[in-house]
Amino acid sequence: MPSFTEKALAVQEKRRSCLCVGLDPDPRKIPQHLLSASSLIDAVIAFNRAIIEATEPYACGFKLNLAFFEALGREGWRVMEETIAAVSSDSLLIADGKRGDIGNSAEFYARSVFEQLGFDACTVTPYMGRDAVEPFLRYEGKAAFVLSRTSNPGARDFQEWGAADELLFERVVRLVSEWAQDTPGEAGFVVGATDAKALKTVRSACPDLPLLIPGVGAQGGSAKQVIDVAARGAGPVIVNSSRQVLYASQGPDFASAAAIAANAIRQELQPTRTS
Amino acid sequence: MPSFTEKALAVQEKRRSCLCVGLDPDPRKIPQHLLSASSLIDAVIAFNRAIIEATEPYACGFKLNLAFFEALGREGWRVMEETIAAVSSDSLLIADGKRGDIGNSAEFYARSVFEQLGFDACTVTPYMGRDAVEPFLRYEGKAAFVLSRTSNPGARDFQEWGAADELLFERVVRLVSEWAQDTPGEAGFVVGATDAKALKTVRSACPDLPLLIPGVGAQGGSAKQVIDVAARGAGPVIVNSSRQVLYASQGPDFASAAAIAANAIRQELQPTRTS
Repeated sequence: MPSFTEKALAVQEKRRSCLCVGLDPDPRKIPQHLLSASSLIDAVIAFNRAIIEATEPYACGFKLNLAFFEALGREGWRVMEETIAAVSSDSLLIADGKRGDIGNSAEFYARSVFEQLGFDACTVTPYMGRDAVEPFLRYEGKAAFVLSRTSNPGARDFQEWGAADELLFERVVRLVSEWAQDTPGEAGFVVGATDAKALKTVRSACPDLPLLIPGVGAQGGSAKQVIDVAARGAGPVIVNSSRQVLYASQGPDFASAAAIAANAIRQELQPTRTS
Repeated sequence: MPSFTEKALAVQEKRRSCLCVGLDPDPRKIPQHLLSASSLIDAVIAFNRAIIEATEPYACGFKLNLAFFEALGREGWRVMEETIAAVSSDSLLIADGKRGDIGNSAEFYARSVFEQLGFDACTVTPYMGRDAVEPFLRYEGKAAFVLSRTSNPGARDFQEWGAADELLFERVVRLVSEWAQDTPGEAGFVVGATDAKALKTVRSACPDLPLLIPGVGAQGGSAKQVIDVAARGAGPVIVNSSRQVLYASQGPDFASAAAIAANAIRQELQPTRTS
Protein backbone atom coordinates (compact mmCIF):
# COMPACT_ATOMS: atom_id res chain seq x y z
CA MET A 1 0.00 0.00 0.00
CA PRO A 2 1.41 3.45 -0.89
CA SER A 3 1.96 5.84 1.99
CA PHE A 4 -0.04 9.06 2.18
CA THR A 5 3.05 10.95 1.05
CA GLU A 6 3.50 8.70 -2.00
CA LYS A 7 -0.14 9.10 -2.99
CA ALA A 8 0.08 12.87 -2.50
CA LEU A 9 3.26 13.30 -4.56
CA ALA A 10 1.86 11.11 -7.35
CA VAL A 11 -1.37 13.06 -7.78
CA GLN A 12 0.41 16.40 -7.40
CA GLU A 13 2.83 15.42 -10.15
CA LYS A 14 0.07 14.09 -12.41
CA ARG A 15 -2.15 17.17 -12.13
CA ARG A 16 0.71 19.62 -11.54
CA SER A 17 -1.22 21.01 -8.64
CA CYS A 18 -0.83 21.35 -4.90
CA LEU A 19 -4.27 22.94 -4.56
CA CYS A 20 -6.76 21.16 -2.31
CA VAL A 21 -10.33 22.37 -2.72
CA GLY A 22 -12.03 22.81 0.66
CA LEU A 23 -15.64 21.69 0.64
CA ASP A 24 -17.40 23.91 3.19
CA PRO A 25 -20.92 23.82 1.74
CA ASP A 26 -22.72 26.72 3.41
CA PRO A 27 -26.48 26.57 2.71
CA ARG A 28 -26.58 30.39 2.74
CA LYS A 29 -24.14 30.58 -0.17
CA ILE A 30 -25.24 27.75 -2.44
CA PRO A 31 -26.54 29.05 -5.78
CA GLN A 32 -30.21 29.91 -5.63
CA HIS A 33 -31.13 27.90 -8.72
CA LEU A 34 -29.97 24.68 -7.02
CA LEU A 35 -31.93 25.48 -3.86
CA SER A 36 -35.11 26.22 -5.81
CA ALA A 37 -34.87 22.97 -7.78
CA SER A 38 -34.79 20.52 -4.88
CA SER A 39 -34.50 19.97 -1.13
CA LEU A 40 -31.60 21.56 0.75
CA ILE A 41 -29.94 18.16 1.12
CA ASP A 42 -30.13 17.38 -2.59
CA ALA A 43 -28.97 20.89 -3.45
CA VAL A 44 -25.87 20.47 -1.28
CA ILE A 45 -25.12 17.10 -2.91
CA ALA A 46 -25.58 18.56 -6.40
CA PHE A 47 -23.39 21.54 -5.48
CA ASN A 48 -20.57 19.38 -4.11
CA ARG A 49 -20.68 17.03 -7.09
CA ALA A 50 -20.56 19.88 -9.61
CA ILE A 51 -17.65 21.54 -7.77
CA ILE A 52 -15.72 18.26 -7.62
CA GLU A 53 -16.28 17.46 -11.28
CA ALA A 54 -15.30 20.97 -12.39
CA THR A 55 -12.23 21.46 -10.19
CA GLU A 56 -10.70 17.98 -9.92
CA PRO A 57 -8.48 18.38 -13.02
CA TYR A 58 -6.83 21.37 -11.31
CA ALA A 59 -6.58 19.99 -7.77
CA CYS A 60 -4.69 17.27 -5.93
CA GLY A 61 -7.63 16.58 -3.65
CA PHE A 62 -10.53 17.71 -1.50
CA LYS A 63 -10.87 18.60 2.15
CA LEU A 64 -14.31 18.09 3.66
CA ASN A 65 -15.04 20.40 6.58
CA LEU A 66 -17.06 18.03 8.78
CA ALA A 67 -18.81 20.84 10.67
CA PHE A 68 -20.75 21.79 7.56
CA PHE A 69 -21.91 18.20 7.04
CA GLU A 70 -22.87 17.68 10.68
CA ALA A 71 -24.90 20.87 10.62
CA LEU A 72 -27.16 19.22 8.02
CA GLY A 73 -28.47 16.90 10.71
CA ARG A 74 -29.42 13.28 10.19
CA GLU A 75 -28.93 13.53 6.42
CA GLY A 76 -25.43 14.94 6.84
CA TRP A 77 -23.79 11.54 6.80
CA ARG A 78 -25.45 10.65 3.51
CA VAL A 79 -24.35 13.96 1.98
CA MET A 80 -20.80 13.12 3.07
CA GLU A 81 -20.98 9.65 1.53
CA GLU A 82 -22.38 10.95 -1.74
CA THR A 83 -19.75 13.69 -1.84
CA ILE A 84 -16.93 11.20 -1.22
CA ALA A 85 -18.30 8.93 -3.96
CA ALA A 86 -17.86 11.75 -6.50
CA VAL A 87 -14.10 12.03 -5.85
CA SER A 88 -11.66 9.95 -7.99
CA SER A 89 -9.68 7.35 -6.12
CA ASP A 90 -6.35 8.99 -6.99
CA SER A 91 -7.34 12.33 -5.43
CA LEU A 92 -6.52 13.03 -1.79
CA LEU A 93 -9.48 13.00 0.54
CA ILE A 94 -9.01 14.87 3.81
CA ALA A 95 -11.45 14.94 6.72
CA ASP A 96 -11.24 18.27 8.52
CA GLY A 97 -12.83 17.62 11.89
CA LYS A 98 -9.96 18.74 14.14
CA ARG A 99 -10.62 15.75 16.39
CA GLY A 100 -8.82 15.48 19.67
CA ASP A 101 -9.86 12.96 22.26
CA ILE A 102 -8.30 10.04 24.06
CA GLY A 103 -8.17 6.28 23.98
CA ASN A 104 -11.45 4.73 23.00
CA SER A 105 -12.96 7.94 21.63
CA ALA A 106 -9.97 8.71 19.42
CA GLU A 107 -10.04 5.12 18.16
CA PHE A 108 -13.69 5.46 17.25
CA TYR A 109 -13.07 8.75 15.43
CA ALA A 110 -10.13 7.22 13.57
CA ARG A 111 -12.17 4.18 12.59
CA SER A 112 -15.02 6.40 11.43
CA VAL A 113 -12.92 8.60 9.12
CA PHE A 114 -10.39 6.06 7.86
CA GLU A 115 -12.33 2.78 7.71
CA GLN A 116 -15.98 3.72 7.32
CA LEU A 117 -15.59 6.80 5.17
CA GLY A 118 -12.28 5.98 3.48
CA PHE A 119 -10.52 9.32 4.00
CA ASP A 120 -6.76 9.43 3.36
CA ALA A 121 -6.08 11.88 6.17
CA CYS A 122 -7.76 13.84 8.91
CA THR A 123 -6.97 16.89 11.02
CA VAL A 124 -6.24 16.42 14.74
CA THR A 125 -6.00 18.83 17.69
CA PRO A 126 -2.96 18.21 19.92
CA TYR A 127 -4.18 19.75 23.20
CA MET A 128 -4.73 16.42 24.99
CA GLY A 129 -1.26 15.11 24.13
CA ARG A 130 0.22 11.88 22.89
CA ASP A 131 -2.69 9.53 23.58
CA ALA A 132 -4.99 11.84 21.60
CA VAL A 133 -2.74 11.78 18.53
CA GLU A 134 -1.43 8.22 18.37
CA PRO A 135 -4.69 6.44 17.47
CA PHE A 136 -4.67 8.40 14.19
CA LEU A 137 -1.11 7.25 13.38
CA ARG A 138 -1.92 3.55 13.44
CA TYR A 139 -3.35 3.30 9.93
CA GLU A 140 -1.01 2.32 7.13
CA GLY A 141 -1.36 4.60 4.12
CA LYS A 142 -3.14 7.31 6.14
CA ALA A 143 -1.99 10.58 7.68
CA ALA A 144 -2.95 12.74 10.65
CA PHE A 145 -2.51 16.47 10.13
CA VAL A 146 -1.95 17.90 13.59
CA LEU A 147 -2.72 21.57 14.14
CA SER A 148 0.44 23.55 14.76
CA ARG A 149 0.23 27.28 13.92
CA THR A 150 -3.20 28.01 12.51
CA SER A 151 -4.21 30.97 10.35
CA ASN A 152 -6.83 32.57 12.62
CA PRO A 153 -6.32 35.56 14.96
CA GLY A 154 -6.79 33.34 18.05
CA ALA A 155 -3.64 31.39 17.10
CA ARG A 156 -1.77 33.98 19.15
CA ASP A 157 -3.61 33.15 22.39
CA PHE A 158 -1.94 29.79 23.02
CA GLN A 159 0.01 28.53 20.00
CA GLU A 160 2.39 31.49 19.96
CA TRP A 161 2.87 31.45 23.70
CA GLY A 162 5.14 29.27 25.77
CA ALA A 163 8.52 28.85 27.38
CA ALA A 164 11.53 31.13 26.91
CA ASP A 165 13.08 28.85 24.30
CA GLU A 166 10.08 27.25 22.63
CA LEU A 167 6.56 28.29 21.66
CA LEU A 168 3.63 25.89 22.02
CA PHE A 169 3.29 25.27 18.27
CA GLU A 170 7.02 24.50 18.03
CA ARG A 171 6.72 22.02 20.87
CA VAL A 172 3.75 20.40 19.13
CA VAL A 173 5.78 19.93 15.95
CA ARG A 174 8.78 18.56 17.81
CA LEU A 175 6.90 16.06 19.98
CA VAL A 176 4.45 14.85 17.31
CA SER A 177 7.33 14.29 14.85
CA GLU A 178 8.96 12.08 17.51
CA TRP A 179 5.77 10.15 18.22
CA ALA A 180 5.29 9.45 14.51
CA GLN A 181 8.74 7.98 13.93
CA ASP A 182 7.79 4.32 14.04
CA THR A 183 4.06 4.31 13.37
CA PRO A 184 2.33 2.63 10.42
CA GLY A 185 0.69 5.93 9.43
CA GLU A 186 2.24 9.37 8.94
CA ALA A 187 2.01 12.66 10.79
CA GLY A 188 1.78 15.99 9.04
CA PHE A 189 0.99 19.50 10.23
CA VAL A 190 -1.59 22.16 9.60
CA VAL A 191 0.19 25.50 9.39
CA GLY A 192 -1.39 28.70 8.15
CA ALA A 193 -0.05 30.61 5.17
CA THR A 194 -0.68 33.85 7.04
CA ASP A 195 2.46 33.64 9.18
CA ALA A 196 5.54 33.25 6.96
CA LYS A 197 7.89 32.86 9.91
CA ALA A 198 5.90 30.03 11.49
CA LEU A 199 5.60 28.34 8.11
CA LYS A 200 9.39 28.34 7.68
CA THR A 201 9.92 27.13 11.26
CA VAL A 202 7.63 24.14 10.76
CA ARG A 203 9.08 23.23 7.34
CA SER A 204 12.63 23.37 8.69
CA ALA A 205 11.73 21.24 11.71
CA CYS A 206 10.30 18.42 9.58
CA PRO A 207 11.15 18.93 5.88
CA ASP A 208 9.96 15.46 4.85
CA LEU A 209 6.53 15.51 6.48
CA PRO A 210 3.41 16.63 4.62
CA LEU A 211 1.99 20.08 5.34
CA LEU A 212 -1.60 21.20 4.97
CA ILE A 213 -1.67 24.95 4.46
CA PRO A 214 -4.86 27.00 4.72
CA GLY A 215 -5.03 30.76 4.49
CA VAL A 216 -3.74 31.50 0.99
CA GLY A 217 -5.82 34.16 -0.75
CA ALA A 218 -8.96 35.19 1.14
CA GLN A 219 -7.15 35.02 4.50
CA GLY A 220 -4.13 36.95 3.29
CA GLY A 221 -1.34 34.40 2.87
CA SER A 222 0.81 34.77 -0.26
CA ALA A 223 1.42 32.05 -2.83
CA LYS A 224 5.05 33.08 -3.16
CA GLN A 225 5.71 32.37 0.53
CA VAL A 226 4.20 28.94 0.16
CA ILE A 227 6.34 28.17 -2.91
CA ASP A 228 9.46 29.28 -1.04
CA VAL A 229 8.61 27.07 1.89
CA ALA A 230 7.78 24.06 -0.29
CA ALA A 231 11.23 24.32 -1.88
CA ARG A 232 12.85 23.80 1.53
CA GLY A 233 11.83 20.16 1.87
CA ALA A 234 10.65 17.00 0.15
CA GLY A 235 7.34 16.37 1.93
CA PRO A 236 4.18 17.21 -0.03
CA VAL A 237 2.75 20.67 0.51
CA ILE A 238 -1.02 20.78 0.17
CA VAL A 239 -2.61 24.22 -0.07
CA ASN A 240 -6.25 24.48 0.83
CA SER A 241 -8.62 27.00 -0.66
CA SER A 242 -12.33 26.93 0.08
CA ARG A 243 -14.41 30.06 -0.40
CA GLN A 244 -12.36 31.50 -3.24
CA VAL A 245 -13.16 28.42 -5.33
CA LEU A 246 -16.61 27.36 -4.04
CA TYR A 247 -18.21 30.76 -4.28
CA ALA A 248 -16.34 32.22 -7.26
CA SER A 249 -19.81 32.73 -8.69
CA GLN A 250 -23.18 32.14 -7.05
CA GLY A 251 -24.97 32.13 -10.40
CA PRO A 252 -25.72 29.25 -12.79
CA ASP A 253 -22.06 29.40 -13.91
CA PHE A 254 -20.77 28.54 -10.42
CA ALA A 255 -19.05 25.32 -11.55
CA SER A 256 -17.14 26.81 -14.48
CA ALA A 257 -16.25 29.85 -12.35
CA ALA A 258 -14.92 27.44 -9.68
CA ALA A 259 -12.83 25.64 -12.31
CA ILE A 260 -11.34 28.93 -13.50
CA ALA A 261 -10.60 30.00 -9.91
CA ALA A 262 -9.04 26.61 -9.09
CA ASN A 263 -6.84 26.69 -12.18
CA ALA A 264 -5.74 30.25 -11.37
CA ILE A 265 -4.71 29.28 -7.83
CA ARG A 266 -3.03 26.13 -9.14
CA GLN A 267 -0.92 28.19 -11.54
CA GLU A 268 -0.10 30.79 -8.93
CA LEU A 269 1.25 28.01 -6.70
CA GLN A 270 3.59 26.56 -9.32
CA PRO A 271 7.31 27.17 -8.81
CA THR A 272 7.64 27.80 -12.56
CA ARG A 273 4.35 28.91 -14.03
CA THR A 274 2.86 26.48 -16.54
CA SER A 275 -0.62 26.37 -17.94
CA MET B 1 -34.60 31.33 30.34
CA PRO B 2 -32.56 29.79 33.18
CA SER B 3 -28.80 29.78 32.75
CA PHE B 4 -26.94 26.48 32.47
CA THR B 5 -25.74 26.97 36.05
CA GLU B 6 -29.29 27.51 37.33
CA LYS B 7 -30.53 24.40 35.54
CA ALA B 8 -27.58 22.37 36.86
CA LEU B 9 -28.00 23.50 40.47
CA ALA B 10 -31.76 22.83 40.33
CA VAL B 11 -31.47 19.25 39.10
CA GLN B 12 -28.53 18.52 41.41
CA GLU B 13 -30.57 19.72 44.38
CA LYS B 14 -33.67 17.80 43.30
CA ARG B 15 -31.88 14.49 42.75
CA ARG B 16 -29.16 15.13 45.35
CA SER B 17 -26.64 14.07 42.80
CA CYS B 18 -23.70 15.55 40.94
CA LEU B 19 -23.17 12.37 38.94
CA CYS B 20 -23.38 12.65 35.18
CA VAL B 21 -23.65 9.31 33.39
CA GLY B 22 -21.38 9.19 30.35
CA LEU B 23 -22.97 7.42 27.40
CA ASP B 24 -20.08 5.82 25.50
CA PRO B 25 -21.95 2.93 23.88
CA ASP B 26 -19.22 0.54 22.74
CA PRO B 27 -20.65 -2.21 20.49
CA ARG B 28 -18.06 -4.63 21.88
CA LYS B 29 -19.40 -4.21 25.40
CA ILE B 30 -23.15 -4.08 24.90
CA PRO B 31 -24.91 -7.06 26.53
CA GLN B 32 -25.06 -10.04 24.20
CA HIS B 33 -28.79 -10.59 24.64
CA LEU B 34 -29.51 -7.13 23.19
CA LEU B 35 -27.22 -7.75 20.21
CA SER B 36 -28.81 -11.11 19.44
CA ALA B 37 -32.32 -9.71 19.56
CA SER B 38 -31.95 -7.01 16.90
CA SER B 39 -29.64 -5.02 14.63
CA LEU B 40 -26.60 -3.31 16.15
CA ILE B 41 -28.27 0.09 15.76
CA ASP B 42 -31.42 -1.00 17.58
CA ALA B 43 -29.37 -2.73 20.25
CA VAL B 44 -27.45 0.49 20.95
CA ILE B 45 -30.70 2.46 21.16
CA ALA B 46 -32.24 -0.11 23.50
CA PHE B 47 -29.09 -0.13 25.63
CA ASN B 48 -28.96 3.67 25.94
CA ARG B 49 -32.65 3.91 26.77
CA ALA B 50 -32.45 1.24 29.44
CA ILE B 51 -29.39 2.88 31.01
CA ILE B 52 -31.07 6.31 31.00
CA GLU B 53 -34.30 5.01 32.52
CA ALA B 54 -32.47 3.06 35.22
CA THR B 55 -29.91 5.69 36.23
CA GLU B 56 -31.72 9.00 35.77
CA PRO B 57 -33.12 9.07 39.35
CA TYR B 58 -29.52 8.99 40.63
CA ALA B 59 -27.92 11.37 38.13
CA CYS B 60 -28.05 15.08 37.29
CA GLY B 61 -27.62 14.38 33.60
CA PHE B 62 -26.01 12.54 30.72
CA LYS B 63 -22.93 13.17 28.63
CA LEU B 64 -22.99 11.73 25.11
CA ASN B 65 -19.58 10.92 23.73
CA LEU B 66 -20.10 11.89 20.09
CA ALA B 67 -17.25 9.68 18.81
CA PHE B 68 -19.23 6.57 19.69
CA PHE B 69 -22.28 7.81 17.82
CA GLU B 70 -20.33 8.90 14.75
CA ALA B 71 -18.66 5.50 14.59
CA LEU B 72 -22.09 3.99 13.97
CA GLY B 73 -22.09 5.59 10.54
CA ARG B 74 -25.12 6.99 8.79
CA GLU B 75 -27.49 5.70 11.49
CA GLY B 76 -25.44 7.38 14.23
CA TRP B 77 -27.40 10.60 14.09
CA ARG B 78 -30.70 8.73 14.56
CA VAL B 79 -29.25 6.84 17.53
CA MET B 80 -28.26 10.19 19.02
CA GLU B 81 -31.75 11.65 18.48
CA GLU B 82 -33.45 8.61 19.99
CA THR B 83 -31.06 8.66 22.94
CA ILE B 84 -31.68 12.36 23.57
CA ALA B 85 -35.44 11.78 23.40
CA ALA B 86 -35.19 9.36 26.31
CA VAL B 87 -33.70 11.99 28.66
CA SER B 88 -36.04 14.10 30.84
CA SER B 89 -36.06 17.80 30.10
CA ASP B 90 -34.82 18.71 33.58
CA SER B 91 -31.69 16.56 33.24
CA LEU B 92 -28.47 18.07 31.88
CA LEU B 93 -27.54 16.98 28.40
CA ILE B 94 -23.88 17.40 27.48
CA ALA B 95 -22.36 16.83 24.03
CA ASP B 96 -18.80 15.60 24.40
CA GLY B 97 -17.24 16.22 21.01
CA LYS B 98 -14.25 18.36 22.06
CA ARG B 99 -14.88 20.65 19.11
CA GLY B 100 -12.37 23.32 18.28
CA ASP B 101 -12.52 25.18 15.01
CA ILE B 102 -12.90 28.76 13.89
CA GLY B 103 -15.49 31.15 12.57
CA ASN B 104 -17.97 29.49 10.29
CA SER B 105 -17.07 25.95 11.30
CA ALA B 106 -17.41 26.64 15.02
CA GLU B 107 -20.74 28.35 14.34
CA PHE B 108 -21.97 25.30 12.47
CA TYR B 109 -20.87 22.99 15.27
CA ALA B 110 -22.54 25.19 17.85
CA ARG B 111 -25.76 25.32 15.85
CA SER B 112 -25.69 21.56 15.42
CA VAL B 113 -25.34 20.71 19.13
CA PHE B 114 -27.38 23.52 20.67
CA GLU B 115 -30.13 24.19 18.13
CA GLN B 116 -30.62 20.98 16.20
CA LEU B 117 -29.92 18.49 18.95
CA GLY B 118 -30.90 20.58 21.96
CA PHE B 119 -27.88 19.91 24.16
CA ASP B 120 -27.39 22.15 27.23
CA ALA B 121 -23.62 22.16 26.94
CA CYS B 122 -20.73 20.87 24.88
CA THR B 123 -17.02 20.33 25.32
CA VAL B 124 -14.58 22.56 23.43
CA THR B 125 -10.83 22.36 22.74
CA PRO B 126 -9.01 25.68 23.27
CA TYR B 127 -5.95 25.16 21.04
CA MET B 128 -7.10 27.56 18.28
CA GLY B 129 -7.79 30.40 20.73
CA ARG B 130 -10.52 32.94 21.25
CA ASP B 131 -12.29 32.70 17.89
CA ALA B 132 -12.63 28.94 18.37
CA VAL B 133 -14.30 29.29 21.78
CA GLU B 134 -16.53 32.34 21.42
CA PRO B 135 -19.12 30.89 19.00
CA PHE B 136 -20.05 28.41 21.76
CA LEU B 137 -20.60 31.22 24.28
CA ARG B 138 -23.27 33.01 22.26
CA TYR B 139 -26.21 30.83 23.27
CA GLU B 140 -28.28 31.95 26.22
CA GLY B 141 -28.92 29.13 28.64
CA LYS B 142 -26.08 27.01 27.24
CA ALA B 143 -22.51 26.35 28.37
CA ALA B 144 -19.19 25.51 26.75
CA PHE B 145 -16.92 23.27 28.82
CA VAL B 146 -13.41 24.11 27.68
CA LEU B 147 -10.70 21.49 28.22
CA SER B 148 -8.21 22.68 30.83
CA ARG B 149 -6.30 19.89 32.63
CA THR B 150 -7.58 16.55 31.37
CA SER B 151 -7.28 13.18 33.12
CA ASN B 152 -5.20 11.28 30.53
CA PRO B 153 -1.43 10.67 30.63
CA GLY B 154 -0.90 12.93 27.58
CA ALA B 155 -2.18 15.92 29.60
CA ARG B 156 1.45 16.36 30.66
CA ASP B 157 2.72 16.89 27.11
CA PHE B 158 1.26 20.35 26.60
CA GLN B 159 -1.26 21.30 29.30
CA GLU B 160 1.26 21.05 32.13
CA TRP B 161 3.95 22.84 30.20
CA GLY B 162 4.44 26.54 29.67
CA ALA B 163 6.04 29.71 30.93
CA ALA B 164 7.92 30.12 34.20
CA ASP B 165 4.91 31.62 35.97
CA GLU B 166 1.98 29.94 34.24
CA LEU B 167 1.21 26.53 32.77
CA LEU B 168 -0.82 26.19 29.57
CA PHE B 169 -3.94 24.88 31.36
CA GLU B 170 -3.79 27.80 33.81
CA ARG B 171 -3.56 30.25 30.92
CA VAL B 172 -6.55 28.56 29.28
CA VAL B 173 -8.63 28.99 32.43
CA ARG B 174 -7.57 32.62 32.90
CA LEU B 175 -8.20 33.73 29.30
CA VAL B 176 -11.43 31.78 28.73
CA SER B 177 -12.87 33.15 32.00
CA GLU B 178 -12.15 36.67 30.71
CA TRP B 179 -13.70 35.98 27.29
CA ALA B 180 -16.87 34.64 28.93
CA GLN B 181 -17.50 37.66 31.11
CA ASP B 182 -20.11 39.36 28.97
CA THR B 183 -21.42 36.57 26.76
CA PRO B 184 -25.02 35.29 26.69
CA GLY B 185 -23.83 31.75 27.41
CA GLU B 186 -21.51 30.47 30.11
CA ALA B 187 -18.03 28.97 30.10
CA GLY B 188 -17.02 26.06 32.29
CA PHE B 189 -13.99 23.80 32.39
CA VAL B 190 -13.21 20.15 31.97
CA VAL B 191 -10.69 19.20 34.64
CA GLY B 192 -9.72 15.65 35.52
CA ALA B 193 -10.20 14.21 39.01
CA THR B 194 -6.84 12.50 38.68
CA ASP B 195 -4.78 15.59 39.51
CA ALA B 196 -5.89 17.06 42.85
CA LYS B 197 -3.57 20.04 42.56
CA ALA B 198 -4.85 21.07 39.11
CA LEU B 199 -8.42 20.61 40.31
CA LYS B 200 -7.85 23.02 43.20
CA THR B 201 -6.07 25.52 40.95
CA VAL B 202 -8.97 25.62 38.49
CA ARG B 203 -11.63 25.83 41.20
CA SER B 204 -9.80 28.70 42.93
CA ALA B 205 -9.35 30.59 39.65
CA CYS B 206 -13.08 30.56 38.85
CA PRO B 207 -15.11 29.38 41.87
CA ASP B 208 -18.46 30.33 40.32
CA LEU B 209 -18.06 28.59 36.97
CA PRO B 210 -19.30 25.06 36.32
CA LEU B 211 -16.78 22.23 36.24
CA LEU B 212 -17.09 18.94 34.39
CA ILE B 213 -14.91 16.36 36.11
CA PRO B 214 -14.07 13.02 34.52
CA GLY B 215 -11.70 10.47 35.98
CA VAL B 216 -13.35 9.55 39.29
CA GLY B 217 -13.23 5.80 39.92
CA ALA B 218 -11.89 3.78 36.98
CA GLN B 219 -9.26 6.41 36.15
CA GLY B 220 -8.10 6.77 39.76
CA GLY B 221 -9.52 10.10 40.97
CA SER B 222 -10.97 10.12 44.48
CA ALA B 223 -14.47 11.22 45.40
CA LYS B 224 -13.18 12.91 48.55
CA GLN B 225 -10.94 15.23 46.51
CA VAL B 226 -13.88 16.20 44.36
CA ILE B 227 -16.06 16.94 47.40
CA ASP B 228 -13.29 19.11 48.88
CA VAL B 229 -12.95 21.04 45.66
CA ALA B 230 -16.69 21.50 45.22
CA ALA B 231 -16.85 23.08 48.70
CA ARG B 232 -14.45 25.83 47.55
CA GLY B 233 -16.92 27.50 45.22
CA ALA B 234 -20.54 28.03 44.22
CA GLY B 235 -20.46 26.85 40.60
CA PRO B 236 -21.99 23.43 39.89
CA VAL B 237 -19.57 20.50 39.91
CA ILE B 238 -20.58 17.73 37.53
CA VAL B 239 -18.78 14.42 37.90
CA ASN B 240 -18.80 12.13 34.92
CA SER B 241 -18.66 8.37 35.14
CA SER B 242 -19.04 6.19 32.07
CA ARG B 243 -17.72 2.63 32.13
CA GLN B 244 -18.26 2.05 35.83
CA VAL B 245 -21.98 2.61 35.34
CA LEU B 246 -22.59 1.43 31.76
CA TYR B 247 -20.81 -1.88 32.09
CA ALA B 248 -21.49 -2.66 35.76
CA SER B 249 -22.91 -5.89 34.38
CA GLN B 250 -22.94 -7.17 30.83
CA GLY B 251 -25.68 -9.69 31.58
CA PRO B 252 -29.46 -9.34 31.38
CA ASP B 253 -29.33 -7.39 34.68
CA PHE B 254 -27.19 -4.61 33.14
CA ALA B 255 -29.77 -1.86 33.77
CA SER B 256 -30.36 -2.64 37.45
CA ALA B 257 -26.62 -3.09 37.95
CA ALA B 258 -26.09 0.33 36.34
CA ALA B 259 -28.67 1.87 38.69
CA ILE B 260 -26.93 0.37 41.73
CA ALA B 261 -23.53 1.58 40.49
CA ALA B 262 -24.91 5.08 39.77
CA ASN B 263 -26.51 5.34 43.20
CA ALA B 264 -23.28 4.19 44.86
CA ILE B 265 -21.24 6.86 43.08
CA ARG B 266 -23.93 9.46 43.82
CA GLN B 267 -23.72 8.69 47.52
CA GLU B 268 -19.95 8.63 47.54
CA LEU B 269 -19.96 12.15 46.07
CA GLN B 270 -22.25 13.63 48.72
CA PRO B 271 -20.63 15.98 51.21
CA THR B 272 -22.72 14.34 53.96
CA ARG B 273 -23.78 10.87 52.97
CA THR B 274 -27.52 10.45 52.53
CA SER B 275 -29.41 7.64 50.86
